[in-house]
Amino acid sequence: MSTPGIITDETGTQRTIGYVLDVSGGDGCARCRLTLDARHTNRHGAFHGGLAAVMLDNAMGAAGSLTVDDSGLHPMVTISMTTNFIASAQVGDTLTATGRVVGGGRSVKFIEGELRRDDGTLIATGSGAFKVMKKTQG
Amino acid sequence: MSTPGIITDETGTQRTIGYVLDVSGGDGCARCRLTLDARHTNRHGAFHGGLAAVMLDNAMGAAGSLTVDDSGLHPMVTISMTTNFIASAQVGDTLTATGRVVGGGRSVKFIEGELRRDDGTLIATGSGAFKVMKKTQG
Amino acid sequence: MSTPGIITDETGTQRTIGYVLDVSGGDGCARCRLTLDARHTNRHGAFHGGLAAVMLDNAMGAAGSLTVDDSGLHPMVTISMTTNFIASAQVGDTLTATGRVVGGGRSVKFIEGELRRDDGTLIATGSGAFKVMKKTQG
Amino acid sequence: MSTPGIITDETGTQRTIGYVLDVSGGDGCARCRLTLDARHTNRHGAFHGGLAAVMLDNAMGAAGSLTVDDSGLHPMVTISMTTNFIASAQVGDTLTATGRVVGGGRSVKFIEGELRRDDGTLIATGSGAFKVMKKTQG
Repeated sequence: MSTPGIITDETGTQRTIGYVLDVSGGDGCARCRLTLDARHTNRHGAFHGGLAAVMLDNAMGAAGSLTVDDSGLHPMVTISMTTNFIASAQVGDTLTATGRVVGGGRSVKFIEGELRRDDGTLIATGSGAFKVMKKTQG
Repeated sequence: MSTPGIITDETGTQRTIGYVLDVSGGDGCARCRLTLDARHTNRHGAFHGGLAAVMLDNAMGAAGSLTVDDSGLHPMVTISMTTNFIASAQVGDTLTATGRVVGGGRSVKFIEGELRRDDGTLIATGSGAFKVMKKTQG
Repeated sequence: MSTPGIITDETGTQRTIGYVLDVSGGDGCARCRLTLDARHTNRHGAFHGGLAAVMLDNAMGAAGSLTVDDSGLHPMVTISMTTNFIASAQVGDTLTATGRVVGGGRSVKFIEGELRRDDGTLIATGSGAFKVMKKTQG
Repeated sequence: MSTPGIITDETGTQRTIGYVLDVSGGDGCARCRLTLDARHTNRHGAFHGGLAAVMLDNAMGAAGSLTVDDSGLHPMVTISMTTNFIASAQVGDTLTATGRVVGGGRSVKFIEGELRRDDGTLIATGSGAFKVMKKTQG
């Protein structure tokens, strides 16, 4: 990781799908960015909705991590997550999922997410409950 | 597709992640199978939960397709989907997501899914509403 | 209904639970208000979470109605709805659920909701997909 | 409570809505029953979907309680819950919500629910994550 707060190639899934995780915003939000290419298409040649869930899960989980420390790397476990699929996206589009903690205690965080195209179009929304793992479990 | 009802390498996402879609069961259910390898790991070196959502979405959408014809290829759009993350899985595990239609009319189908390890352990559950696309939209 | 945009005692459920539906905001949002009393308690003597879902469903459905006309009375059907339970509330608290449409086409609307206490504390969030009923179905 | 495992009039919400909670099944499931009357109607004169969420939440929470002891009274807190609304129901119908634990650890339980009419018609499904409260918190 050469730029502080920009996480790339961290996990197998990240390398496979190619998204970038950005925890540098300083606003408590985490962002997951992806420019869509041929790896990300569904039956219609458009963006695969399952990957919208992956991007939202990443951004929301990292937002939860930011409640522990600034690295955005503290391990979180998704308990439950709902995704609403609002609009489609196409190869060439750059999408950003933004996760934001809206409540919760020390152990369980409630986190919301929005996935938008660079022109601001809302592609999907997410909401979920995430568990903060203990340091010793990490 | 050499074996009837076994769909491989159909979409960019499928080629990237490497799952197999099986609509040959004859029981109205569709199945999405994946043996976990280094492409599918999260921060903990375990199965990335976002991919559980991808597998469930695929199996559930394909189950919806089976209400139209036996190909499992009729286009569906996910409206909303919830995933509950129950247990973790590891590299080397083979997982099967099974989608089953539980209700709905001509246009909207309600579909449930279960993701299990080969030993039967429940890894995640899904439920969602899916829209059957019109043939001319396909 | 004596005050324009303030809907009271409209349905059996509304009379039973006693909430007020407010579609007068002029901001596209609908609001469902309830002051908690002994009718609304759970096992702990606190606010019953199921009623949080009822309030959010009402506010979100009415927000969908406002996309059709200003009455807030156009019939909607909830397809799927998720509620996250963030904080508890007590007898004597006044709660407001606010529904806001975030996307969708003519037939299906995606709607988000927040349930807050009068001091601003977030009690629960909701998100869901709702169907706009045709006039002839109403 | 005169009959073992049949819980009536326990909470304000239960008295208001009039459902019966049945934890006597001996199968680990809990059931919430209600015969629909004029207290339970929506804008269409049919069953209010929000009350489907209430019934499912009750049955699912009580099923979680049964993992602690047979009383079905151990306090649970709903973390997140999704309801899918599959079919409508009418005044005079008797509905049963059945909750069943599908997984989880000591603290968080994953619970599924089905709401059916007496003729077996599936009215709604639910899934959610629930927290087992500690005895001292009860």
